[in-house]
Amino acid sequence: MADSPNCDLKSLSPLQLFERVTEQGEKVRALKAGKASKDEIDAAVRMLLSLKLSYKTATGQDYQAGLPPRDLVLINNGTTKEEDEDFVDPWTVQTSNAKGVDYDKLIVRFGSSKIDTDLINRIERAIGQKPHRFLRRGIFFSHRDMDQILDAYENKKSFYLYTGRGPSSQAMHVGHLIPFIFTKWLQEVFDVPLVIQLTDDEKYLWKDLTIEKAYEYARENAKDIIACGFDISKTFIFSDLDYLGTSTGFYKNIVKVQKHVTFNQVKGIFGFTDSDCIGKISFPAIQAAPSFSSSFPQIFNGKENIQCLIPCAIDQDPYFRMTRDVAPRIGQPKPALLHSVFFPALQGAQTKMSASDPNSSIFLTDTPKQIKTKINKHAFSGGRDTIEEHRKYGGNCDVDVSFMYLTFFLEDDDRLEQLKQAYTSGELLTGELKKVLIETLQPLVAAHQERRKQVTDEMVKQFMTPRKLAFEF
Amino acid sequence: MADSPNCDLKSLSPLQLFERVTEQGEKVRALKAGKASKDEIDAAVRMLLSLKLSYKTATGQDYQAGLPPRDLVLINNGTTKEEDEDFVDPWTVQTSNAKGVDYDKLIVRFGSSKIDTDLINRIERAIGQKPHRFLRRGIFFSHRDMDQILDAYENKKSFYLYTGRGPSSQAMHVGHLIPFIFTKWLQEVFDVPLVIQLTDDEKYLWKDLTIEKAYEYARENAKDIIACGFDISKTFIFSDLDYLGTSTGFYKNIVKVQKHVTFNQVKGIFGFTDSDCIGKISFPAIQAAPSFSSSFPQIFNGKENIQCLIPCAIDQDPYFRMTRDVAPRIGQPKPALLHSVFFPALQGAQTKMSASDPNSSIFLTDTPKQIKTKINKHAFSGGRDTIEEHRKYGGNCDVDVSFMYLTFFLEDDDRLEQLKQAYTSGELLTGELKKVLIETLQPLVAAHQERRKQVTDEMVKQFMTPRKLAFEF
Repeated sequence: MADSPNCDLKSLSPLQLFERVTEQGEKVRALKAGKASKDEIDAAVRMLLSLKLSYKTATGQDYQAGLPPRDLVLINNGTTKEEDEDFVDPWTVQTSNAKGVDYDKLIVRFGSSKIDTDLINRIERAIGQKPHRFLRRGIFFSHRDMDQILDAYENKKSFYLYTGRGPSSQAMHVGHLIPFIFTKWLQEVFDVPLVIQLTDDEKYLWKDLTIEKAYEYARENAKDIIACGFDISKTFIFSDLDYLGTSTGFYKNIVKVQKHVTFNQVKGIFGFTDSDCIGKISFPAIQAAPSFSSSFPQIFNGKENIQCLIPCAIDQDPYFRMTRDVAPRIGQPKPALLHSVFFPALQGAQTKMSASDPNSSIFLTDTPKQIKTKINKHAFSGGRDTIEEHRKYGGNCDVDVSFMYLTFFLEDDDRLEQLKQAYTSGELLTGELKKVLIETLQPLVAAHQERRKQVTDEMVKQFMTPRKLAFEF
Repeated sequence: MADSPNCDLKSLSPLQLFERVTEQGEKVRALKAGKASKDEIDAAVRMLLSLKLSYKTATGQDYQAGLPPRDLVLINNGTTKEEDEDFVDPWTVQTSNAKGVDYDKLIVRFGSSKIDTDLINRIERAIGQKPHRFLRRGIFFSHRDMDQILDAYENKKSFYLYTGRGPSSQAMHVGHLIPFIFTKWLQEVFDVPLVIQLTDDEKYLWKDLTIEKAYEYARENAKDIIACGFDISKTFIFSDLDYLGTSTGFYKNIVKVQKHVTFNQVKGIFGFTDSDCIGKISFPAIQAAPSFSSSFPQIFNGKENIQCLIPCAIDQDPYFRMTRDVAPRIGQPKPALLHSVFFPALQGAQTKMSASDPNSSIFLTDTPKQIKTKINKHAFSGGRDTIEEHRKYGGNCDVDVSFMYLTFFLEDDDRLEQLKQAYTSGELLTGELKKVLIETLQPLVAAHQERRKQVTDEMVKQFMTPRKLAFEF
């Protein structure tokens, strides 16, 4: 894309225009904060207004910060979005509903299956213990072929876990922990190998980053992941930029996937255009390949056909729908999936938390004081405008972000239910609910920071070294 | 693409239809040769006729074996081909002129420079010896930035050579040796490192081959390349499927190129369509990356910016035009190039030799008898129809394939000139000219076979092991 915001505005998509307005707005704020000269600020403001005008001309709507244009291509095969439909792809999650994305609709649209009580009960029987709160509370709400995984497990056949992360910045927020917390639990109850992909190549391709910086983020993020407490003898963490050049199996699977997916397909699935770079276009194969055990000959002793289970947020499903489509054509088993809901931004469940907006997130590096301030200042409340009204009518847990966060992080089911009732009845005030969240998150983040301090560069190196794990294949 | 030739014929391009007709024709011949049942043969013939009809409907022309449709996109940015223009891309070379492709036009169209007498003289002065017959005779006829390479050489700055081969079948033909014979000479006179890429991944992506078969071809072809006499201490041969998984630098350069080339660009350069697989679309970056010395940290001690010189047939230029376009944007020097003409098929210079038609080529595995028979039976003659006419009017060296082959393989300039004069005057008959060619090629091929027998699997392994070469960087 051109550096000057003035040229080729007409050729930009509404989403690109939206991003340009957002960037320019940030620039104006930075200039003001940095006490730049009046001329400079004025010029930047003029540019901002001109960009906003272009945006309005292109979309027929006023620019609204945080609300990308709604005329985007839907994930499911390019049909246009209806007024009240949610938009979900690996890069954007958007809904107009304060309760968040309608996940039941998403299951229908994506063609996955709901994690229902029967399945949760079956998991409980198989592992002989209480299912994780993320299952009990519908945070992991959708799946593909989880019954096959349980069949295999009950027949003493092994499988492996695969999850990942795109390392876009040094600091991770608490929402990033969800797949890792759950994956760690899955690994412990099923006792299986785990591979964790850090897609530093993806971040290099999508962002204005050097290869070196992307790889540095990968290693920094690996520390936060390791701090979740993974067992080094059962877990392999890898950066694409690194592992592609050290594995005899990974590239072969990538090129196999690449042979069996056309540009038409990735265009339909990911919305790529002819102006996208060929790296983006072929990248989905790189996220697909770890679904096949032959990508890790050192772990699986060269064996193909070890079944894979992928816990991930539902926005990653397009990659694995593609993978499952290709798998039988390259003689590999389809990976099974467990999908989580999105972790909401502090400002509300219309969008997911983003590492690029510091006020939308509680970062794993935040101090107790920062956590307290952010929650008190930014956490969207389902409470009433006055104490009197609140006492009278009660609060709304469905849209209250503090309550949502507590469903993610408060382990005690009874306590959570009590809080819900007390808040809904008006007995519990917003400030009191926020206090519970602050007191839940502060020690959780502090403990994470403590564990992260223990993670040395040497440990990162060991986790990221291709090697045999504590399983025989 | 679907297996049944009947489905989606309408969605096929003229070239794809052409290929389907050709395949079906081969199938009919195979059925007849294998004495298949009448029903089976009849069904195959009906399919062939139906395919030919589809071809005629799509192109307005009758199918002609060996003559692909002419309404293809030109290599230079998608302008349509004129009636009398040559078609050249990495997969197809086609001209209606019996003298072969018009190389002067190609230089203009590709924007390269002619290797003129001045440049040849400068090379002679720089190396202090007679330039190779391929330079003296215009077989390497075009270049990019060869003057920069000579500047560097004269200033005692090092460079390296990069060439390659797509290993599509086990047997190579004599035409495949041209870049290797020339590269070996360049390496000897300039004393520089050489890397040879075997694009087994490309062949897997383009052909109906398994990964294993493509890699096997790569190793088999490596034996023929090694048999050309390359110095193991100065030469690294690599298969993409292999080296990508063992190099810390190669993938990083691939992804850098992939970030800086759009689908629009590869569509313009290579004629890819939305129906092509994403592997083909991103492949050009894999052929580009060895142009950068950081793809070989083991050879160049991690140094970037060592200049690269690529000797190759002109049909490979599109890859390197793209590479040269990207190079400055990723902070790398543009590779220099030396382009050769195509090696003509025995049947005439309208197309290049192809390993897939056994009668179009002299294979490196052919016996002296096979060589004699093929030349006598198939080498297109520029001679007259009767001895009397030939004596009277003389032969035409410009279209005579035996003479063309001698310009490639007969070292003695005086002898070649004598043959030309004698043939043109009618003094030398076609049979006599063919005899000279047979006597030139038989010992050349026999000597190659002898050297190839000496190439052990262990030697192949050594050549293909990433390692330091006999140069300090």
